[in-house]
Amino acid sequence: MNYPKTILNLIECFKKFPGIGEKTAERLALSTLNMDDEIINLFSKSLKDGKTKIKKCKRCGSLTEEELCQICTDKTRDTKTLCVVEECKNVILFEKIGTYRGLYHVLGGLISPLDGINPEDIHIDNLIDRIKKENIKEVILAIKPSVEGETTALYIRKMLEGTEVKITKIAHGIPMGADIDYIDPLTLEMAIEDRTTIS
Amino acid sequence: MNYPKTILNLIECFKKFPGIGEKTAERLALSTLNMDDEIINLFSKSLKDGKTKIKKCKRCGSLTEEELCQICTDKTRDTKTLCVVEECKNVILFEKIGTYRGLYHVLGGLISPLDGINPEDIHIDNLIDRIKKENIKEVILAIKPSVEGETTALYIRKMLEGTEVKITKIAHGIPMGADIDYIDPLTLEMAIEDRTTIS
Repeated sequence: MNYPKTILNLIECFKKFPGIGEKTAERLALSTLNMDDEIINLFSKSLKDGKTKIKKCKRCGSLTEEELCQICTDKTRDTKTLCVVEECKNVILFEKIGTYRGLYHVLGGLISPLDGINPEDIHIDNLIDRIKKENIKEVILAIKPSVEGETTALYIRKMLEGTEVKITKIAHGIPMGADIDYIDPLTLEMAIEDRTTIS
Repeated sequence: MNYPKTILNLIECFKKFPGIGEKTAERLALSTLNMDDEIINLFSKSLKDGKTKIKKCKRCGSLTEEELCQICTDKTRDTKTLCVVEECKNVILFEKIGTYRGLYHVLGGLISPLDGINPEDIHIDNLIDRIKKENIKEVILAIKPSVEGETTALYIRKMLEGTEVKITKIAHGIPMGADIDYIDPLTLEMAIEDRTTIS
């Protein structure tokens, strides 16, 4: 004997999530049975809503339920500074700090010829168009320092050659509170290269 | 800015699961957006079905979509042997081995006065009634060897005093393939106590 069909279906669904294996899926599926009806109804509804209501902001690519996201429609933001990030969740991370007041542009991926992701797949041309049309003064590249990240940064830089736009990248270096003894050589190299004058 | 309402709802729902924190909930919620419609529909439906269709087998307490579970209605099972387990998933574990051909009884918990779980909360009287009514010859206690497990086993034994029923418990000892050097003293003590004659 095995579990009833409904539970097997739940286990299968949970197994589709990244990092969830057979045992965890079984545990999660069984725990749904003991949850409040209210939560289950909200969960069931939100899953469907996620597919129908959530779309990408026409301007920046963030997740939104409207045409444009909250940031793009916020009149108090600095519309001349653009922070380029890989994923939607990066936007939320920066917003949680709350000090950055410019706009964002979500690429939705990084250039990776090995994985078949070319500049057109992440719509770099839309980004370049936007920078020119909205008369952006500074583009901050907040992309991870991987091979793909560096390639993407380089490509954007090349596409903006000959324009007046200032291109910056967020600092890579030693994290606050970290012991210098435990930092990998590449980070250390970056930290020396990106050193800043203090007096 | 934060995520749109639907995504915040999804994150809240995922956080209700045991062992899922803020970061994991966020990751899981976002990954639902990229799943196939088919999976999302099945997931959404199964969550609701779990609350409406899944019930406990009237006889043994296993999960089922019918009045009685597949095992209780299986005519080929040995109806004189009853394996008592704590949770529904223990039944599935034993069934996966496939060698046990008797019936089961799911307690749904263990006696734990400290947590306010008394014999009546896990319906021990139903179990005793069932053993007597179905004329069970052997009751196998497959309960974990914790304080609660031992208390529950002792209580069942006491309630069956004076009957002809043979009561056994599954062996606790060194797991197959484990190195004796790494076994905890309590398991070792159990292994010596439960030793079997080999010649």
